[in-house]
Amino acid sequence: MTRKLHLNVNILNSGFLGSAWRHPSSDPRAIYDVNHYVRTAQIAERGLLDAIFLADTPVLKDNPARRPYQALEPTIILAAIAAQTSHIGLIATVSTTYNDPYNIARRFGTLDHVSNGRIGVNLVTTADRDTAANFSQDVHPEHGARYTRAGEFATVLKKLWNSWEEEAFVGDKASAHFVNTAAVHAINHHGQHFSVKGPLTFPRGPQGHPVIVQAGGSDEGRHLAAQHAEVVFSVAQTIEDGVAFVQDIRARAATFGRDPSELVFLPGLATVIGGTEAEAKARHEELLELLPLDYSLGRLAEGLGLPIEALEVDGYLPEDLVRPAGASHSMFDSITKLAQRDKLTVRQLARRLAGGTGHRLLVGTPEQVADSIEEWFRAGAADGFNLMADVIPSGVEAIVDHVVPELQRRGLFRTEYAGDTLRDRLGLTRPKWHHPEEPSYD
Amino acid sequence: MTRKLHLNVNILNSGFLGSAWRHPSSDPRAIYDVNHYVRTAQIAERGLLDAIFLADTPVLKDNPARRPYQALEPTIILAAIAAQTSHIGLIATVSTTYNDPYNIARRFGTLDHVSNGRIGVNLVTTADRDTAANFSQDVHPEHGARYTRAGEFATVLKKLWNSWEEEAFVGDKASAHFVNTAAVHAINHHGQHFSVKGPLTFPRGPQGHPVIVQAGGSDEGRHLAAQHAEVVFSVAQTIEDGVAFVQDIRARAATFGRDPSELVFLPGLATVIGGTEAEAKARHEELLELLPLDYSLGRLAEGLGLPIEALEVDGYLPEDLVRPAGASHSMFDSITKLAQRDKLTVRQLARRLAGGTGHRLLVGTPEQVADSIEEWFRAGAADGFNLMADVIPSGVEAIVDHVVPELQRRGLFRTEYAGDTLRDRLGLTRPKWHHPEEPSYD
Repeated sequence: MTRKLHLNVNILNSGFLGSAWRHPSSDPRAIYDVNHYVRTAQIAERGLLDAIFLADTPVLKDNPARRPYQALEPTIILAAIAAQTSHIGLIATVSTTYNDPYNIARRFGTLDHVSNGRIGVNLVTTADRDTAANFSQDVHPEHGARYTRAGEFATVLKKLWNSWEEEAFVGDKASAHFVNTAAVHAINHHGQHFSVKGPLTFPRGPQGHPVIVQAGGSDEGRHLAAQHAEVVFSVAQTIEDGVAFVQDIRARAATFGRDPSELVFLPGLATVIGGTEAEAKARHEELLELLPLDYSLGRLAEGLGLPIEALEVDGYLPEDLVRPAGASHSMFDSITKLAQRDKLTVRQLARRLAGGTGHRLLVGTPEQVADSIEEWFRAGAADGFNLMADVIPSGVEAIVDHVVPELQRRGLFRTEYAGDTLRDRLGLTRPKWHHPEEPSYD
Repeated sequence: MTRKLHLNVNILNSGFLGSAWRHPSSDPRAIYDVNHYVRTAQIAERGLLDAIFLADTPVLKDNPARRPYQALEPTIILAAIAAQTSHIGLIATVSTTYNDPYNIARRFGTLDHVSNGRIGVNLVTTADRDTAANFSQDVHPEHGARYTRAGEFATVLKKLWNSWEEEAFVGDKASAHFVNTAAVHAINHHGQHFSVKGPLTFPRGPQGHPVIVQAGGSDEGRHLAAQHAEVVFSVAQTIEDGVAFVQDIRARAATFGRDPSELVFLPGLATVIGGTEAEAKARHEELLELLPLDYSLGRLAEGLGLPIEALEVDGYLPEDLVRPAGASHSMFDSITKLAQRDKLTVRQLARRLAGGTGHRLLVGTPEQVADSIEEWFRAGAADGFNLMADVIPSGVEAIVDHVVPELQRRGLFRTEYAGDTLRDRLGLTRPKWHHPEEPSYD
């Protein structure tokens, strides 16, 4: 089989489970310690994974009394990891709603130089309404406005990353010719949200530009993915949903003139792995037992975009529940589908959700996890997965030491790193330079 | 002598001289290579220096056809250096005009955790008018407005860095108590430029907060330094100017209720060092010969805030020349004073300036450099220096291998690192926590 899987590890706090920090193997302070991220990335690199992935939200959220949650600024973490790894890709999330594209083009462009071409940028619009108050905004922009801005943000990033032609740097000591300024171009972008003259302050990077990643399943999110994303981090509970999503985005990408094969689909996949199925279930139970009910209910309420008081603990979600304004489309849909499918009370749903992420959850042996990965991959529901381990790093070690070898035996996963850049790992073409004032979707 | 010198190295491009990249020892591509910064920091750490310093301007400026100039984004560089050094302080520059304080508080706060307390932030308002066009602004704000914003920016940073009490993090696995949220406070800042609710997303850092550095000699710049700066990076050509500046800022600091001894004054000092005075002069001449005249004139014009056409190459600067709006106060004053004092034609001044930085320049032996450093230090004109080597890293090696040992022999410089943080190196007190809604100037 020549088509290969792509596997990322999402270094999500102390593990995707809110109780991961209470696990006997965990240092409770880990999320504030850069070595937590560096060591996990080194484990992932030992397993030849494509990349590590860091989420981000620039506001203190979830429930800090009960559990760790996205804390340190992720581009700084990526730079620290880059200095202490050699091959693995490095992806960080950035809010397009609360940043200027010039700063982000520079920071991720710098990271791409510093890491020798291992960087991806995950563009999100930030769903949390409380964020506005940290950024001198009266109101958090509505969903549609955020996505319009995100699309223009991605356009400006690509223009800036095209502001230097490939050979603009000369560096000829004899003639005192440092840069061929005729090959460095203003981008002269004037749009609805941004006016950016450019150029950037340094040459084009090893990957042409960082790999653009996008997560979000709303119609606007799909539009953004189809137009700009090279990696799509999606939410899908079933193979059918996964296949439908992939086909929809690839078809939309074609309408923008893009080659649909130049998109890599990596649904989220949460894992609890044990040597036997019973061991895996026991590990899951142990972690669920460590979750306080008040925490689990709060997380469910947040995922649904509802106040916690609106939930009746021993009742069911109303069948006619309508997604509140401001709630994440993909999270709301995923949670309500799960409740209906498995006929769960709010208490059961809260516990299940706190024991998951809104993403698909597998509890089982390495072989069972590999089976499911293979099934989705062969069905065209995924090109690979964004893996979320229950506890970090022990859950990542289980993936690297047991799931990866199983996938390698099946011929589904690489047995050595080939190529130098994250694009090489992902099978993505290095984008050709074109003048930044010419329109482009690649 | 118990009072000790503080020495930083400013990793300014390939060296402060515009021709440094053409020196036989230089890799012309160095400024785009993270290892250039890492290796230089490691040399500085070998010399027990206090910190390395990175300037920044978020626009492509100076003369890229002729020389390297501030390119990569400096906080990413600091994170890479932090991972590959253990003791040396790390200071990066940030524009308060073109950033949001929440993002900067998070990024530098993260750096302070990641580096175990070795971070300083140099707040600048960005003088270059062209920057506005990269940030969707029609007009670059005027000097006074930029400094008003910078002062409020510093206030918000300190409030955010005080949003977690020292003991807010609990991390008790047994009781599922992660953070004592009663000890985490919104800052509820509502000012002229910013409205920021807070709190920050992580606990108070090893230094309480990063060391605040300020550079700029205008009345507004002095006001900002007196109110917020812990390290002042100043421009002074003579001991008298240096003493007057130190006394002025210390007196102003006292009016804010600050302890004037809690400010460290580090004037810029450019160095060209040789084994003999003749060797140093020859090295300087060699580097000056490598500077094209068109480049030198452009740099002089920029320093004065004038178009290059306004300069008469073989004439003198008009005696009644008035500082144009938008020109840097300290650079303009320094250059025009130098021209008058040494009666230089424009051609001579351009060459001298391109062979300097607007900062004081010493060309001589390690003993001569040490003599001057000692003289300024004993006179109270400086607590140390922000050193700018002619060529990097060879000029930094000359400082570390020859100037530092001479200063150590004289009892003026440390012979080992004591303490853990940049504050420890600089003799600065760790700021006590106080409620972020209470006013404070320390």
